Formats: sequence, C-alpha cells, structure tokens
Amino acid sequence: MIPRYSRPEMVAVFSPETKLGIWLDVELAAAEAMAEIGAVPAEPVRALTQKAAAHRERLIDPARVEEIEAVTRHDVIAFLTHVEQVCGEEARFLHLGLTSSDLLDTTLAIQLTRAADLILTDLDLVLDALERRAYEHKLTPCIGRSHGIHAEPVTFGLKLASAFAEFARNRRRMVRAREEIATCAISGAVGTFANVDPRVEAAVAVRFGLRPEPISTQVIPRDRHAAFTSVLALIASSIERLAIEVRHLQRTEVREAEEFFAAGQKGSSAMPHKRNPVLSENLTGLARMIRAAVIPALENVALWHERDISHSSVERVMLPDACILTDFALVRLARMMENLVVYPEQMRRNLEATHGLHSSQRVLLALTEAGLPRQKAYEIVQRQAMRAWHEGKPLLELLAGDPEVTAHLDRARLERLFDLDYHFKHVDTIFERVFGAPAGNGNGG
Amino acid sequence: MIPRYSRPEMVAVFSPETKLGIWLDVELAAAEAMAEIGAVPAEPVRALTQKAAAHRERLIDPARVEEIEAVTRHDVIAFLTHVEQVCGEEARFLHLGLTSSDLLDTTLAIQLTRAADLILTDLDLVLDALERRAYEHKLTPCIGRSHGIHAEPVTFGLKLASAFAEFARNRRRMVRAREEIATCAISGAVGTFANVDPRVEAAVAVRFGLRPEPISTQVIPRDRHAAFTSVLALIASSIERLAIEVRHLQRTEVREAEEFFAAGQKGSSAMPHKRNPVLSENLTGLARMIRAAVIPALENVALWHERDISHSSVERVMLPDACILTDFALVRLARMMENLVVYPEQMRRNLEATHGLHSSQRVLLALTEAGLPRQKAYEIVQRQAMRAWHEGKPLLELLAGDPEVTAHLDRARLERLFDLDYHFKHVDTIFERVFGAPAGNGNGG
Amino acid sequence: MIPRYSRPEMVAVFSPETKLGIWLDVELAAAEAMAEIGAVPAEPVRALTQKAAAHRERLIDPARVEEIEAVTRHDVIAFLTHVEQVCGEEARFLHLGLTSSDLLDTTLAIQLTRAADLILTDLDLVLDALERRAYEHKLTPCIGRSHGIHAEPVTFGLKLASAFAEFARNRRRMVRAREEIATCAISGAVGTFANVDPRVEAAVAVRFGLRPEPISTQVIPRDRHAAFTSVLALIASSIERLAIEVRHLQRTEVREAEEFFAAGQKGSSAMPHKRNPVLSENLTGLARMIRAAVIPALENVALWHERDISHSSVERVMLPDACILTDFALVRLARMMENLVVYPEQMRRNLEATHGLHSSQRVLLALTEAGLPRQKAYEIVQRQAMRAWHEGKPLLELLAGDPEVTAHLDRARLERLFDLDYHFKHVDTIFERVFGAPAGNGNGG
Amino acid sequence: MIPRYSRPEMVAVFSPETKLGIWLDVELAAAEAMAEIGAVPAEPVRALTQKAAAHRERLIDPARVEEIEAVTRHDVIAFLTHVEQVCGEEARFLHLGLTSSDLLDTTLAIQLTRAADLILTDLDLVLDALERRAYEHKLTPCIGRSHGIHAEPVTFGLKLASAFAEFARNRRRMVRAREEIATCAISGAVGTFANVDPRVEAAVAVRFGLRPEPISTQVIPRDRHAAFTSVLALIASSIERLAIEVRHLQRTEVREAEEFFAAGQKGSSAMPHKRNPVLSENLTGLARMIRAAVIPALENVALWHERDISHSSVERVMLPDACILTDFALVRLARMMENLVVYPEQMRRNLEATHGLHSSQRVLLALTEAGLPRQKAYEIVQRQAMRAWHEGKPLLELLAGDPEVTAHLDRARLERLFDLDYHFKHVDTIFERVFGAPAGNGNGG
Repeated sequence: MIPRYSRPEMVAVFSPETKLGIWLDVELAAAEAMAEIGAVPAEPVRALTQKAAAHRERLIDPARVEEIEAVTRHDVIAFLTHVEQVCGEEARFLHLGLTSSDLLDTTLAIQLTRAADLILTDLDLVLDALERRAYEHKLTPCIGRSHGIHAEPVTFGLKLASAFAEFARNRRRMVRAREEIATCAISGAVGTFANVDPRVEAAVAVRFGLRPEPISTQVIPRDRHAAFTSVLALIASSIERLAIEVRHLQRTEVREAEEFFAAGQKGSSAMPHKRNPVLSENLTGLARMIRAAVIPALENVALWHERDISHSSVERVMLPDACILTDFALVRLARMMENLVVYPEQMRRNLEATHGLHSSQRVLLALTEAGLPRQKAYEIVQRQAMRAWHEGKPLLELLAGDPEVTAHLDRARLERLFDLDYHFKHVDTIFERVFGAPAGNGNGG
Repeated sequence: MIPRYSRPEMVAVFSPETKLGIWLDVELAAAEAMAEIGAVPAEPVRALTQKAAAHRERLIDPARVEEIEAVTRHDVIAFLTHVEQVCGEEARFLHLGLTSSDLLDTTLAIQLTRAADLILTDLDLVLDALERRAYEHKLTPCIGRSHGIHAEPVTFGLKLASAFAEFARNRRRMVRAREEIATCAISGAVGTFANVDPRVEAAVAVRFGLRPEPISTQVIPRDRHAAFTSVLALIASSIERLAIEVRHLQRTEVREAEEFFAAGQKGSSAMPHKRNPVLSENLTGLARMIRAAVIPALENVALWHERDISHSSVERVMLPDACILTDFALVRLARMMENLVVYPEQMRRNLEATHGLHSSQRVLLALTEAGLPRQKAYEIVQRQAMRAWHEGKPLLELLAGDPEVTAHLDRARLERLFDLDYHFKHVDTIFERVFGAPAGNGNGG
Repeated sequence: MIPRYSRPEMVAVFSPETKLGIWLDVELAAAEAMAEIGAVPAEPVRALTQKAAAHRERLIDPARVEEIEAVTRHDVIAFLTHVEQVCGEEARFLHLGLTSSDLLDTTLAIQLTRAADLILTDLDLVLDALERRAYEHKLTPCIGRSHGIHAEPVTFGLKLASAFAEFARNRRRMVRAREEIATCAISGAVGTFANVDPRVEAAVAVRFGLRPEPISTQVIPRDRHAAFTSVLALIASSIERLAIEVRHLQRTEVREAEEFFAAGQKGSSAMPHKRNPVLSENLTGLARMIRAAVIPALENVALWHERDISHSSVERVMLPDACILTDFALVRLARMMENLVVYPEQMRRNLEATHGLHSSQRVLLALTEAGLPRQKAYEIVQRQAMRAWHEGKPLLELLAGDPEVTAHLDRARLERLFDLDYHFKHVDTIFERVFGAPAGNGNGG
Repeated sequence: MIPRYSRPEMVAVFSPETKLGIWLDVELAAAEAMAEIGAVPAEPVRALTQKAAAHRERLIDPARVEEIEAVTRHDVIAFLTHVEQVCGEEARFLHLGLTSSDLLDTTLAIQLTRAADLILTDLDLVLDALERRAYEHKLTPCIGRSHGIHAEPVTFGLKLASAFAEFARNRRRMVRAREEIATCAISGAVGTFANVDPRVEAAVAVRFGLRPEPISTQVIPRDRHAAFTSVLALIASSIERLAIEVRHLQRTEVREAEEFFAAGQKGSSAMPHKRNPVLSENLTGLARMIRAAVIPALENVALWHERDISHSSVERVMLPDACILTDFALVRLARMMENLVVYPEQMRRNLEATHGLHSSQRVLLALTEAGLPRQKAYEIVQRQAMRAWHEGKPLLELLAGDPEVTAHLDRARLERLFDLDYHFKHVDTIFERVFGAPAGNGNGG
C-alpha cells in the first residue's frame, strides 16, 4: 500500500523484518518442542537458541536472505541457509519434518492476529469518539431524514449512538475473526504429521497464543482468511455509512456539521464556505478498496486438492493492503469524529425549515382523540399543512387561527403538540441500550 | 429464483403468503402488547385477535392485498385496509404509532431466522454425510496432491474430514449470523419511540424469539444483513471447494470417485465412461451466484441519514435468492457426498503411479540416520528416483538392487520405508480433533 | 426476476416459448443448410419444414417438453422427441452432427442480440429525454458543486448534457457488445466440425444475422458474455450516477428538482413536503444488482478444457436478470427524467445563498488586472468574502462599499463581475460538442 | 504494487517522476496555447518554456515537491510553487484559469494511454507465442474434454488457436478502451470554460494525442475509467482460462504439457515428477486481483454533482496496480506459453486410454447407414463399448470380432472409422478463420 494511506504500526506487522523475525521464532519454537519430546537432541537446540538470540539482528536481514533466494529460488530454503551460515551446523535441527507452508501459514496467522489487535484498538478509538460526542449531543435536536426528506425530529446524539452500536457490532465481529484466524499448523507435507509429531504443533501454538489447526492439508484452510476479510469489508461499509452521513451534513445547503478545518488550511482562496469534506470523501473511496478484497479472498477458498498456490499472490498483496487500509481509515475516522465541528443552531434552523410540519401527525392524533372523526381531522390538518408549506408560515400559528381547530384544542395544548421533548422522551432508554449503564460510562458495545 | 434451483421449503419462507401471515402476527402482537400496558383498550384488541384467528385464511390473501395496493400504491396500507375490510373497525388498533419499516424489517428478521434454521439443517445433512463417508474411508489410502502434482500419501477419509471441519466452521458462522439478524424494531418513524412505547417492541421481540434492536433509525441497520450475506458467501466458497475436489477426482485420467449415476441415466449414448460431474459443476456455478450477493449487501449498508430505500430492491431479490440457492446447493451437496461412488483400487493405482517416489524422502532420511553424509545419501536416492520415474520401475526394487543402499539398509528395512501406514499413524489423532471423542460418533463441529 | 422489476418485452426474450421457438428455427435452418449442400436429402427436410410451420404452436409447448424431459433428463433430447412426435419421422434429419451446445449457445446469442436491441431502444428513450430537457434548461442557472459544496455557476442544461454524453457512450458500448455477442456456433461435439460441415454454420449464421464463431470448443467462448455483462454494469453505474444526482436535488434543503408526483399520490398523510425520491432510490438499488452480475460473468470465462457446465446456472439466472433489470431501469429512468419537475427559482435561490461568493475569484482577477499586487488584492477580497459569508450580506454590496475596491473598480464594472452570463458563454460550444449541429436537433451521441 | 509482480516499464508510467514530467508538459502546453490565441503574452511564455527545458531535471523532483506540499497541503500548488522557485516569475502564466483536476485528469489520461500501449505490446507477445505454438501443434492429436471427461479428439493446436482468438478479442477491446480513455479536459472549475478558452483544451489535446472531453464537470467522467478497468478484468479472466488449462495439462495423471523447468531448478529434492505449475497458479491468483478492481471502478462512476473526490484513492492505488498486474501477468503468460513443454506421446496415450470409445458414435452412424435400425445398431455398439471400457480392450478389436458388426462393416471400413484424421479435416478452415490467410503468417487478431 502507498504511504499516503498507511500507518507505520500496521505496515510493520507485514514488513519483511517482522516476517523473518516470526520465521526465526517459529522455527526455534518447533525445534525446542522437538527437543522436549526427545525427537532431536536437546543440547544443540539449546546452543542454537542462544546463538540465534545473540545474532538476532544479523539473522533478520531481508536483503541477505533475498540475495540467497536469487540462487535457491525458494524463500524458506534461503532463510534456513542464511541461519546456517550465521549460526553454524546446529541449524540443521530446524525445519525437520516441516513443510514451508507450516512456517508461512503459522506466520501469517500471527501477523493477522497482530493486525486484528491493531484494528481492535482502532475500533476502540472510534467507539470512544462516538460515545463522547453522542453524550455531548444527546439532546441536540435535529431533523431526522428518510429518503433525504425531512421526517420527524431526532437528536444528533442518537445519530452518533447508532453509529456507535454499529461499530460495536463490528468490534465483536473482529474479535471473532481474530479467534478464527488464530490457528497454527505444523503438520508436514500434506498435513498427516508423517514426519513431525502433533505435540510440536501444540507447543508452538501455545507459544504464540494460537490453537492448533484441527486438520490442515499442507495449508491452513482459506475459509478462515476469507472470513477475516469479510469482517474487514463489513467494517469498511460502516465507515462508508458514517462518512456519507458527514458528507451530507457538510453540504452547503445543510451545514449541520463540518470536518475540522485547521486554522490556516484553505479550501479555496477566496470562498470561505469552500470547506470540502475531503476526509470523509477519502474514507468513502478507501471503503471501496477494502471491500474489493472480499471476492478474491472468497475465490481463494477453493484451492485444488491438498493445496495449490493461487492464493499466495492475493495474500501477499490484498490481505496486507486490506489491513493497512482498514487501520488507516479507522484512525482517520476516529480523529474526524473526535474533531467534528457541530452546528446546533443550524440543526435547529433546518429543523424549523418545514414550519412545524414534522409535528402534523401529532396534531392529527390529538384532534381525533378530542373526538373529531379521523377523516375530518385529516382534512383540517392537511389544509393548514399545505398552507404552512406553500406560504412559508408556522403551522402552529395557522392552526391556532383555525376555529375548527381551536374548538377542540386551545393554544397551550397546541404548543405542547409542537414540543420537541415529546420526541426525545426515550432517548435515555436508547442510550442505555447502546452504551449500557445509565451513568453513560459503560462501553456497552 | 427459478424453480430449477429452488426447494419448496425455502421458497415458502419468502412467499407472499408467509409474509402476510407474519405481518398479521406482528401487528396483532404489537396491539396486544399495547393493550397489556394500557396504551389501547384491551377488549377490542381481544375481539380483533379472535376475528383474525377465525378468518386467518381470508386475511392472508396476497391477490386481494395486491388489488387494494393497485389503488393505495402502498403495500402496508393495502394490507391494513384489507384487515379492516375483513375484521371490521377494531382493526384501527393495529399499527398505532408504527411505521411501515417496523413491520417490514421485523418480518424480514423472522424470515431470515427461518432461512437460517433451514440452512443449519442443510449444513447438518452435509456434516452427517461427510462424517459417515470420512469414517468409511478413514484409512483408504490415496495420493495427496499439491499443485495438482502427486506429493505424499493421505487417506480419502482425511480429505472428507477436512471438508467436515470447514463446514463445521460454516455452521458456527451461520449460528452467529442467525443471532445477529434476529432483532426486532418497533420504534416508529425515525426510531425515537415517539408514538410507540419501547415495551411494545420488547413484547413483540419475545413473542418471535428476537431481541429488540438497540437503536434503529426507522430501519434495522443493514450491516446485520451484510454480515448474514457474508456467511452465505463463505458457505458458497466451501461448497465450491468440495465440488471442485469431486470434479478433479472424476476426471477421466484420475477417476478416484464419481458422482452417483442412476441406473439408466445416460451421460452419452455410446461412451460408457462419459459420466459428467454435472452436479458438482452446477454447484460451482451456484457458488458464483451466491457470492455475488455479498457486494450489493455491503453497498446496502451506507443508507442516507435515517434511511433511504435503495436497499429494498436488492433485498427483495438477492437476499431471498441467496438463501434459496444456498439451501438448494447444500442439499444437493449432501446428497452428492452421501452417494459419491469411491474407487479405492483406482486410488491405489494412482498412488502407485509414481513408482514409490512418494516415499523417497523417507529413504533419504533413513540413509542419513544410518550414517551416510546427507549429500551422498541425496545423490543415491535422486539417481534411483530419476530411474524409477523415467524407466517406470518401482523405486523399492531399484534401491534394493543398489549396493550403496543395501550396504546400509536391508530389504526388510527398505520395505518398511515404503509402508503407507507410516503416513497414517496420526489419522486417529486428526479424526479425534475433527469429530471429537474417539468413538467417532461425536459431531465435533 | 420478480415482476415488480420486469417489463414484458424483455421477459419475453428469455421466456421458455421464445427459447423453444428459436430452437425450432435453428434446427430447421441447420437441416435446410444440410439439404442445400447435399448432406441430407432435400425432400424430407422440405416436408419437415412445412409440417413444422403448420404445427408451430403445438411444437412450442414448454409444458409438454418438460414432461418428456422428466423422463429423458435432457432438455434438448426432450425437445427433439417432441418434434418427432408431432412431425413424424422426418424429424430424424434434425440435429445431425450437432451437439446440444450448438443449439443452446446459438440460441443464447440470438436472445442476447434481441436483448441488446431492446436496451438500445431504451437508451434512446433516455437520450431523447435528456436531450429535450437539456435544451429546455440550457441556460437555467444553478450552482455547480464539488464535494457537495457550492463552487461556481453552471446551468441545469449542462448537468443533463453531461448525463447525455455518458449515456451516448454507453450506447456505443452496447452496440459493440451486441456485435461481440452475435456469433453462431454449429461445430459439433468439440468444435471440430467432425460431423457437421462448416457451411451449415455459415448458413445458419446468415439466417439469424450472426457471424460464425471463428473457433468454438463445443461452446462459444465466455469472454463474449462477460464483455456483454460488463457493458450492462457500466450502464448501471451511469444510471446510478444520474439517480444520485436527482436524489441530491430533491433533498428538502436543496429542492431544485423533484421526481414527478402524480396528483393524489401521497408521500405522507399530512406532510406535503414529504415527496420521497423513491424512483431514483430504487434505481440506485437496481444498479447494485446489475453490477453484481459482472464478477460471476468473469468467473464463467475460465471453463475447464473444451468446456464444463459451471457457467450454465449463472447464465440461466443472472444473465436474463441483468438484461431485465437494465431494461426496466432504463425505461424508469427515461420516464423519470422526462417528467422531472425542475424548480429554476429554487436553483436561483441556492445559487445566491452564498451571497455572490461564487464570483469572488473573478473580482480577485479584476483587481489584479487593474494593477493591484496579487497579495493585496487577495487580502481585500478575502476580507469582504468572509464578511459576506458570516454576516450574510451580498458580496457585491460589501465590495461596492470598500474604498480600496472602488478605487480600482466602479460599480458598473463590479456588477459585471457578478454577471452569471460570463460563466455561460461557452454553453453553446459544449452543447454543440455533445449534441452535434448547433441546430440542437442532432443526436450527437 | 510489490516489486515481485511489477515490471519496471509499467511502474515507470505511474512513477512520481513521470507524473511531474507530464504535469510540467501539460502546463507548458496550456500556457503556449494561451499565448497562441493571445490570452497571455507570448514572450514570457516562450522564456518560461526555455527555462523549463534547461532545468527540466531540477523541476521533476518529487522529493522537493513533497517538501513544499507538507506546507501547502495541496500537491498541484506545491508543484507550481516549485516551478516558480526554479524558473522565476514567468511561472505565473501557468495554470491560468485551470483547476487542479484539469491537470490531474489529463495526466491520468496520458498515463493510461501509455499503460494501454504497453499492454497492447504484451498482448502481441502472447498472440505471437500462441500463434507459433498453435502452428507447431496444428495436427498434434489430443483428446478433447468436456466436463473433465474425455470426449472426442481435437488437436493441441486447436486449443492454442482458441486461446489466440480470445486474446485477439481482448486486443481489440483494449484498443477501444485506449481510445475511450484518451481524452483531455482543460475546462476550469466546473467545466464551463469560464476562465479558460476551449481552444486551449483543443491545443493541449492535439499535443498529447488526445481528444477533448466533450463535456467535463471539473473532472473527466469516470465511466471511461470503469470501461478501461473492465477490459483489464476481461483480459485477466482470459489469462486465468489459459492458466487453468496449463494447470490441468500438467497434473501428474495427465502430464500432456508442463511449464518450462530450468535445468537445475528443483520442485522437490527427490521426487523428479514434482514439477509444480507455479507460474500458471500464480497467474490464476493475479487474475483474481485484477478482476477485483472492476467493482470499485464501477462504484467510482457515481460521483456527487459536479464531482467529489472519493474516486481519488481508488485511482491512486487500484488503477496503477491493475495495470501493473495485467502487464506483469501478460508477459509471464507469453513466456510460459513460448516455453511450454508439450508431450505429444502422452497426449496420444491419454487419447487411447478409453480404448477407442471416442469413435463409438462414428461406428453407430456407419451401422445405421449400412442399413441397421438405429435401435439395433445402438445396442450392438453400446454392448461392445461397455466391454471395451470395463475389460480394457480396444473397441476396434471387439467390434471386428462381433459377427453382427462384421456382417455390415469389414475390418478396413472399421479401421477407417477410428481414423483420427476424420476429426481434423476442418482444422485448416478453423486456422484460416483464426489466423487469417492460409499461409498462416497473418495475425488475424
């Protein structure tokens, strides 16, 4: 992935240095496990472990390994050759009975659990920002919109709570995806443990916080990686949803919220309103890319027989890229939401732009309850609603001037029917559902 | 979905009759819950419930509702009108404070949980078939292949156990997807419960085995549906993997297994070998279609503001279709695996087609252990392996005739090195991991 | 596809009756071509043709063919049996040397050319509507928006011209896709013409307006179908673009245009502004579905060896569905654009909502030309632009009251700088590029 | 894209240096065109052009521009600042009336035409290899397979001719995609040419071999880029098809062809048959990745209003990546096919593995022609065919020993019925259709 959309933390997870470091650790852990069960002599393995620790920096040298690979044309053999050159002949106790895939797939599992941990941290940043801002605007009224058209009042806090609940679901999905991907395979050429004891796999698994893959076929089955990628795609879609909400709110005509704009930052030289929602637009594009990883990941599942290597290129490129993009996008989203500039007055103005029509149904209901036949009540309300809309006058005033209305509802009652709080009486309940304990500090995700 | 790829059980879940039936039940459940908390009078609701039960068949009449819809141009209003026409004026206590989406989304949740239940049953069929056949062929030797090229021996039971483990994972994923999708929303126009008490939602949820959606925005958030669809896509990819395995095994040159061919069924008029793996090829195509539902489902997540209706068409078509296809494909797969014709002798022939080369590494190892320098041992083995391959002679015999070999390994020892059981000594362990208790009856999924 | 999203014209193209009719015609055409070159006797073929014409209705009977298929388990054999039953033994001259795929693939090619013709007609409807409305609003000013933020003035006609140009490109793409798909294969079991003369293929091709497939392998290669589907996906994306434009314009806060709302149609019982852009939202969803067909179509390309049948299910379902949806969506779009209600006054109001800031750059330029250093000019303009924005006053007035400005630009000059026509001076040029001859009647697509 | 899957030629097309070089050339071309029509003074522009030529290397300095961008936070402004710093104040005549997108989109168009040219060259390599090998094996018999099951004879040259025809179609598609993408936009802030004369765009277009975009809206419409990407996806699918053919042919049981294996290259230390088709497996994976670019490209089409910037990230990453991967994959494919090791004897062995069953239909036909009732003839042939298959005996011999057969067909006639040449009599015709003139040297693509 290009640096512009990468954070060093996630890039490091997939760097050549990290990979070689894990390779070394997995090979040593396997050799130690073999020594433990008496499959290889303990002494040279202990010596090897010590040498490896002493020369760790020299061992983890992608450039040198690549040089050797230019000759051997096989990356794992190149690495083992390099280890032998550095650590001497005890290195022959490495990789005994293993196949390259044992090393590669276990390493990928470790990298993906680390990637998952970063993404979980990122999701927490998003959740924290959303929770804080949701409570800040718990009762900030704004218009709810269906189909882009004004409907009834909500609060801005409810919008953010809804996003919080969605990201909390994504967090749970990622926890499970991490669990699914965290398996270790040290099972030999076609997964039969013909030349390596299953206890070695068990020991390596424990060492790296993994579970043994119940059954591997040289490789760890790729439905696990596809499931992991599917969760990235779900997260991406949720990012897109929130990004599009911000883009809508920042439209010139709406202007209820804006991405933070650094002092001195220029959208346009002379048009002060020209602050473009470039972060959220960028997030929309990133979401498209992350999502695109899901089909190749699914296509990777159907490897031929015990394995073919068609998945490898996809996993070298798209799997790291999808992780890097998701990490980058989540951190960008967290900051964007943390710093989002909110305009409650403008929300109020927009809310009132339909002259109180958002409460027309309540009036209708009240007239019916007051004894008017539904059809009659409906005619009255609609007549005045039409006037409110076309003449741009407050519906409340029009109703208050209509004797057919005032015969049943006095002005005080009418005013109460336009009271926004009526719509917000269950906000506490909803917040409790979303964030947990009424104290509002729980992370109810 | 066209009938050719549909089973009536799943079609019924999404039929107009089913939908109207759930609509009726949900509306009645909501009215009863309102009566319970005193929001509406109990008596007329009780009367309505009885009338609805008495006239249930007349009420669930898609043709009649469609007639009314042609006038009202709104399906939910048409349905309510129909209920009123049949049950009389107590019907006015239905739908109070609800929005159409409350009804539609809760209904969809119920349909999807039913679809999930069918798919879980289907997965059990697949798992049962795989488990039975895996135990049947637990020790049926066949060649393991990486890259389509012969590698080392496995058993046919291991292949099936690997598929079992994958479908067991899919089963767990579907259980969670069912859980995720099983939420109920009765929260009114923009999800604020302005005109409907949250206790109504809670009561309806209980009635249908759902949980209340913590926060809805007129609609249930669509990441839930996307997560559900992602699991269908994962199942599809696993179906494809197993289907491709069968297609490979049935190739004329391989012929280790065949789809069941009914007596009298003709692949070709005069070529008896022309039995085409049409079921597994069909499953490959169905997998492509199911998978195709995942991107639209992800694109559906980012609805505008509190909702737009762009997701609706996708969910009317692709969501039922993906469920119907997955159901159909799983049942077809289960039967296919149940009836798969397996040819152990041909497996044995293929296994031996490389003249024992699959054991060359073991000989190499034995020579090294017997004291030969690795490089020397390697030269000897490779020389004879090359002959075996190019002259088509058994490697065992060639080695047994090579004095450099027999100086270190006698014939008895050599024969043991070609013993297939060596490769199968951990099959029990693997089966235990996959299927649970060694009795082999557990469903370890 | 469900009737809700289908037009009978396109459904007919893929109906069982149509298919059987084409089968009959292709088989007869092949037999006649064989008679022509003396491969079969002419007389019985002539007799058969006459009988087939006489009994055409009885022959095209999907229910009867399905009955027979229940026994033969092969659709083409069932059809031939049916023909024999109806027309007698001359029917044995049908299908000689042909393989089922010859019939199926040639038929599909004919269906897809018909589908293409319908879609081309639909595209013409869209183009006509766009051209008419573009000329109608050629000089209707509205604000141009980048990033959803007001930028500089455009005309509503330019927006429509842009859409016209895009659909004109799609039309050209569909013409080429039609051309690509219009091939005929009558080449026998594995495409070698072993038992059928290539001249038969040539004659059938001519009869149906197709070209012979240069090389088939039992089947017509599937990259052709994938290319066709790709064009449907492109059309879908253009539909989505225009639909999203309408959805934006109809937002309550923007309200520059609205989908036509039938008198009496109700968006909401009492909120007259609640007219939801449901057609364009629906088009957005349909676009997602059409687009989803492209990946399976691409996956269908890599059939095994001379062919497998994995593509068949995809083509039975998704290819007709994608055609039906594209046809439906285009006709819906054409009507929607034809009837789109446009609000030029509201466009004007929105245009002026930024108090003339859209012309700030022109003032800046004019001051520079009048001799002020750029940096100085910039400071002045930005100062007044900020006031205009924050105080809500017309920029023109503020500038006209700023002595530093009036020292260089008098009021008349200032007013000219705010003249919208300045922005529209090249509209003619653009229209000419898009629509052709300045008369504006050419369909320049 | 990672270096492992990149060729320097295509990487260079999208390098920062190339981009800055094109920026410089486009800006200078625009300034010169303005000078030409008198919009700016000619002299300083001429001076600027000379200075730019003299300092070209200093100007094209991504590191320096990036430094400035760290301050300006806008890449185009950073570049213009850099040019001014290097070339002095005449640089103020650059970018007059232009918007950044004019520069970026025209540059992208130039890069994509160059990418297209490389891909066309690559396609020619593939076509050349396929044509050469097709003629080499024009009459090399091998079995044709449908459903992976032996069908009737084809030649290996026909397989390659089929691939040739498919890539020739892809070449034509790429030629058109190049044409579609080759447009230039120099039309200002919202595409109205308010501050830049259309003649400038026309002149720049001519300079770079582009056509003016008929109507742009700040940006070039993205359906063009989606159409381009669709063609890459089609090419990818054709690559996958041929790669899968090779993978099938190289299977141990089939072994009709193999990827070239360098002397000394090791698939496995001791198993000489362990030559894995790693190139074609890799191509299969690359195809998945390229194809994945098509959905984001389609999603990019529906930008909001005159443009948003959501497409930008996708185009920074996936568009270059898709070009780089396609280029890499095509060159790899060309070499692989050029060097493919073909085993005609093994093809012959496989062809004969079904004991002559591939000719059973011809015998059936001959018996019928000889006067036997079809049903009777069928019984006879099938009976012997079954024996041939189950007893492993040549069908010819069995038939020659069956008096019911020999009563109608003598041995000489029988032998002719098994003659492979019968199947190849139209190979010349097909080659002529695919490759053009019978001389066989034409590139009929």
